[in-house]
Amino acid sequence: MDSDSSSFIDLRSDTKTLPTPEMLQAMISAELGDDMNGEDPTVNRLEAMICDLLGKEAAVFACSGTQSNQMGLRAHCLPGDELLIHELGHIAIFEGGAPAILSGVSCRTLTGERGMLTVEGLRGKIRANDQHLTRTKLLCVENTTNAGGGHYYPLDQLTEICDWAHENGLNTHMDGARIFNACIAGGYSMKEVCAPLDTISICFSKGLGCPMGSILVGSQEAITHARRSRKIFGGALRQAGIVAAACIYALENNIERLQVDHDNARFLAGQLAEIEGISINPEHTETNLVFFDVHPELGNAMQLAAALRKEGVGIGAMGNSTLRACTHLDISRAQIEQVPAAVRAALQAGLDQYQGMATGPYARG
Amino acid sequence: MDSDSSSFIDLRSDTKTLPTPEMLQAMISAELGDDMNGEDPTVNRLEAMICDLLGKEAAVFACSGTQSNQMGLRAHCLPGDELLIHELGHIAIFEGGAPAILSGVSCRTLTGERGMLTVEGLRGKIRANDQHLTRTKLLCVENTTNAGGGHYYPLDQLTEICDWAHENGLNTHMDGARIFNACIAGGYSMKEVCAPLDTISICFSKGLGCPMGSILVGSQEAITHARRSRKIFGGALRQAGIVAAACIYALENNIERLQVDHDNARFLAGQLAEIEGISINPEHTETNLVFFDVHPELGNAMQLAAALRKEGVGIGAMGNSTLRACTHLDISRAQIEQVPAAVRAALQAGLDQYQGMATGPYARG
Amino acid sequence: MDSDSSSFIDLRSDTKTLPTPEMLQAMISAELGDDMNGEDPTVNRLEAMICDLLGKEAAVFACSGTQSNQMGLRAHCLPGDELLIHELGHIAIFEGGAPAILSGVSCRTLTGERGMLTVEGLRGKIRANDQHLTRTKLLCVENTTNAGGGHYYPLDQLTEICDWAHENGLNTHMDGARIFNACIAGGYSMKEVCAPLDTISICFSKGLGCPMGSILVGSQEAITHARRSRKIFGGALRQAGIVAAACIYALENNIERLQVDHDNARFLAGQLAEIEGISINPEHTETNLVFFDVHPELGNAMQLAAALRKEGVGIGAMGNSTLRACTHLDISRAQIEQVPAAVRAALQAGLDQYQGMATGPYARG
Amino acid sequence: MDSDSSSFIDLRSDTKTLPTPEMLQAMISAELGDDMNGEDPTVNRLEAMICDLLGKEAAVFACSGTQSNQMGLRAHCLPGDELLIHELGHIAIFEGGAPAILSGVSCRTLTGERGMLTVEGLRGKIRANDQHLTRTKLLCVENTTNAGGGHYYPLDQLTEICDWAHENGLNTHMDGARIFNACIAGGYSMKEVCAPLDTISICFSKGLGCPMGSILVGSQEAITHARRSRKIFGGALRQAGIVAAACIYALENNIERLQVDHDNARFLAGQLAEIEGISINPEHTETNLVFFDVHPELGNAMQLAAALRKEGVGIGAMGNSTLRACTHLDISRAQIEQVPAAVRAALQAGLDQYQGMATGPYARG
Repeated sequence: MDSDSSSFIDLRSDTKTLPTPEMLQAMISAELGDDMNGEDPTVNRLEAMICDLLGKEAAVFACSGTQSNQMGLRAHCLPGDELLIHELGHIAIFEGGAPAILSGVSCRTLTGERGMLTVEGLRGKIRANDQHLTRTKLLCVENTTNAGGGHYYPLDQLTEICDWAHENGLNTHMDGARIFNACIAGGYSMKEVCAPLDTISICFSKGLGCPMGSILVGSQEAITHARRSRKIFGGALRQAGIVAAACIYALENNIERLQVDHDNARFLAGQLAEIEGISINPEHTETNLVFFDVHPELGNAMQLAAALRKEGVGIGAMGNSTLRACTHLDISRAQIEQVPAAVRAALQAGLDQYQGMATGPYARG
Repeated sequence: MDSDSSSFIDLRSDTKTLPTPEMLQAMISAELGDDMNGEDPTVNRLEAMICDLLGKEAAVFACSGTQSNQMGLRAHCLPGDELLIHELGHIAIFEGGAPAILSGVSCRTLTGERGMLTVEGLRGKIRANDQHLTRTKLLCVENTTNAGGGHYYPLDQLTEICDWAHENGLNTHMDGARIFNACIAGGYSMKEVCAPLDTISICFSKGLGCPMGSILVGSQEAITHARRSRKIFGGALRQAGIVAAACIYALENNIERLQVDHDNARFLAGQLAEIEGISINPEHTETNLVFFDVHPELGNAMQLAAALRKEGVGIGAMGNSTLRACTHLDISRAQIEQVPAAVRAALQAGLDQYQGMATGPYARG
Repeated sequence: MDSDSSSFIDLRSDTKTLPTPEMLQAMISAELGDDMNGEDPTVNRLEAMICDLLGKEAAVFACSGTQSNQMGLRAHCLPGDELLIHELGHIAIFEGGAPAILSGVSCRTLTGERGMLTVEGLRGKIRANDQHLTRTKLLCVENTTNAGGGHYYPLDQLTEICDWAHENGLNTHMDGARIFNACIAGGYSMKEVCAPLDTISICFSKGLGCPMGSILVGSQEAITHARRSRKIFGGALRQAGIVAAACIYALENNIERLQVDHDNARFLAGQLAEIEGISINPEHTETNLVFFDVHPELGNAMQLAAALRKEGVGIGAMGNSTLRACTHLDISRAQIEQVPAAVRAALQAGLDQYQGMATGPYARG
Repeated sequence: MDSDSSSFIDLRSDTKTLPTPEMLQAMISAELGDDMNGEDPTVNRLEAMICDLLGKEAAVFACSGTQSNQMGLRAHCLPGDELLIHELGHIAIFEGGAPAILSGVSCRTLTGERGMLTVEGLRGKIRANDQHLTRTKLLCVENTTNAGGGHYYPLDQLTEICDWAHENGLNTHMDGARIFNACIAGGYSMKEVCAPLDTISICFSKGLGCPMGSILVGSQEAITHARRSRKIFGGALRQAGIVAAACIYALENNIERLQVDHDNARFLAGQLAEIEGISINPEHTETNLVFFDVHPELGNAMQLAAALRKEGVGIGAMGNSTLRACTHLDISRAQIEQVPAAVRAALQAGLDQYQGMATGPYARG
């Protein structure tokens, strides 16, 4: 793997960021304690900051977005319950079947443009109260939508589906792994975006540049329940303040700058649109995720990803023909400007040499 | 409820049949033992008969189709595994979320005409081997399709999807609650229909007229595993021969006569097609399930079901506009001939009087 | 296996009884309906009878004692909860680990004389409210104690432990597989024995002579919850009245006669006490289960069981040196009178010839 | 809480240590990558170091000891399996019932001196292969024993029970949260202590002074399986090298010094033995955990803990009369020398003033 090469432009994921010297300094300066017993002042400060920012009662630090999502789900659902989620939702696809394994919960997957749900799509999808049927308990929304293309929910759409859910007796959870991207792109405050949600999971190791860390936010009751789940999942830590300090640093320094990632992404999308053999609607690049397709006659996404790697650019395959480039903290405009040439070079060299490759990273058969 | 009225024509389900005097006689004449220890000769005989009929190694008696399905699923899958199933499949919808609760297994629901899967629909649906993803382990087919409309898989289609599954490392399970209807309708032998399947669940309390009972069939290894699951689910019985005797009676007497039910169903479908306000394609009535729609401007399915009940006919709502009538052992042609008039009368009387009713039996919201 | 020989005296279990002609007649005369929808009048009658008999709000028919126990447990406990139970309790040992599998529930096993719990033994065993610990939720008592030796709880002891449980926030469940034996032996009414319990599971296929069937009794809320569990476990049946009729027959005819089984058991215990090589305290035979030990120098329990089988008597090994003989409906005093001679003959013939046998039926290693 | 007071002597747990400046320096100097994809060089180095140290094939970093224990358990066991464990074992008591919740696994708890198992205690505890019974799959040993008093397994005893387990078809897992303490105290190499174990969980946030981090070690197959579990539990991190670097630092610097903690502990034990009202056998203080009892007529453990807190010493209650003091990296001999006076002062002041306190930290009722 040549990813350690200094010239490698790694757009594979916004989880690839390394902590900056300033963030590292914040980490080693943090006041620490045993968070298992609630004695870590830095974790406590982070949890309080987030409550304040989101306008919620309580928060609990977690190790990862998957963990805080599963803690949230478990706070709402019992075995035999079902959640409504977009078929591209991270909880439905990318958490290893955890809802069924950890909580005995089924996912009912729905469709909708670009990973987003609508009231029209939700209507009629709550199961009646009958012993044959699961109990529909929770609406899960992902904001921004990862596999959906990095889209953010327009506030009225988000409010409308959550209101519908509440009116119909469902709770609402947001997988807000990239919720700050949504707020920056939509010009929303965190408070207004989170208002219609009962629980929100935030991930600090994506656009915010932290090495690890996530948080679940909601009512006191939900969070008290989630603390138990966290312990059971092995996510209750000791001097967690050392990583929480990075999250605090990111909250204080790395939110506004997400606009730079969005600008870079939109710029890249525009450049890719001009490349023959690539399909992309630049309008659909709303945040830091750039989804584009390679024309099937040229090869598949895995092949193009391999060819790009050779050109010094890391971009991941997301489907047979679809690739995803993520802009992030460690990617400069200058680096972005080199990408179109790399794509052209990769296509020009031909993808045939990678013939043996699987057609998609997430599917076979 | 007026269902106990002797003139009530109960087409709500083929589970409504009562054991005939001959079946009852067979039950009380059965030689019995303690099936928990494999000592019930009648259960043993039933299991042997079914193995022989299906051409499989081993079989285990169960209490219900739900139970034998879940025993089968558990024989193939571990927590974190996923099964591929039609979105209308009984295992996915009507077993209370049991795959997630009992086995930590996720259902990936797919579409397809009339409840049936195709290789085209399955292709690309097996997840890659990756820690983020469930492990796709099992293909579940339902034959005939209940919520899909009582369709049977053409043998080549069934074989093709099972072959595809095996080639791609999946096991195959058939929810054969109405497998005898499929064989009679398709003119197939049980052996040829079951050949491509690793496990098959059969239910005796549907078209076959038994008060209870089901069976799971497959390899010795799968069935040995399933016996443990049966015990854990509380499905291991003592003198089970008394109910197994009814199943043996049904196997020996009630298979061929399913043709009568199919003829009655097709006849009914043809009659319904001539009623204004009712939509049905009689060609789609292949077995004993008659699915038809009421025109929305007249009312919804729940309302028509209520109106029909008043007319002495039991027909269940299956969706907002869709109703299902089942022909079965306890329904004569003479009774079927009375149904069209009842439908006309119900529509004529108007469905407005049932205005308060829910729009669907299985969904709200 | 020679158990089908007409002269075989089968004391292996009180589950071995065959339905009598009168019971069979009651079964085939039962009025039936679809119990899945609550339409089986015989099941409804049985449930009502039991509510009346026990003085409880609601009841639900089940397939087996294991099933009704697990339905009860699930009505009280969530994943992460723990129940307190005697280390010899059926739920802890003989239900295949179902509490953990089906409900994510842990069993905390305690000791106590002859399978029974005391407040002294329970004190200090409820876990504090702490994320590290399970939540202690349920006290399970078994009455009579099967592996404990067929003992019944003195009413004041039962009341005392249940009161203690309720005072400390626990619910109480009784595995009453042989609760009628307890009542007959103690001279108690079902109402007084069941009063301190929140849920009670009764099994009809043990001393009562039914081929199958069990029932769970409790509050309306608990039983409504249990109906869902029953469906999920595959225990919801169709024309279940046919087996429920046997249970009604047993309730009306086979309760008082349990005294005969108890008398036979006590008689047998007295006889065994006089056999050299056998240890038994006849005072400890309170109901229909006769536990006795073979002197280790003569051989182990599995060997003696094998030798007895050869003598035409079925008695099961329960431990290295311990055997259990069950008296029941199908065993007459005349048969019991033949048992001591068979034991003497078995011992006289010597157990060495069965040397290869395992030392215990339930343990190895 | 006065625990932040600089003069507070915190012996409550060896999880209370704060990273030293040198450890912090190591952390911020670590080379990092995305560990989710195996790209973090520091994590990879730690895993390789540990494999080497223990003489095992593979290792996987985890967030906590609870997490790596549960990952290990899941690598060995399926739902319906049972593990054998001391009744004081951390996995059985202090992981929130995770075996049942996460894996459907039951714990069979056994007794033994000071938290340790013997072949005599294990014999006969493997269940036979029978549908009624769980499948005994795993032997879990804890070394050193936490709730047992910080004892280490003599190597021959450990080897003997593991050999017995393997001979009887069980796998073996060690909860080695304090395995380095065991090796130092016993004069053993890690390789020899780990040789009889199939998987070993090590925790770095106990005696080793790291803020967080654990590791599971075993065969390639077990660890590959565990990586999936880790992801599902939400324990798969991104730039985990930052915390893994602390673990590497600890391995290189903090192992040998555990002898200091042991010496301090033994010294404290000797001092406590001379205090009236305190019971302790100093010989039983083998590692860094000092267990002692307060005489019941003076008060209970919770009261003494509260009184000690007032004297500036943190010592936790472990039972009604039992307290646990942990020596660790942040506790000097000088601090230890102040403890006896504090205990005397606490007892002299009288515990009556804390009368309202619960009698034990982990139990009620």
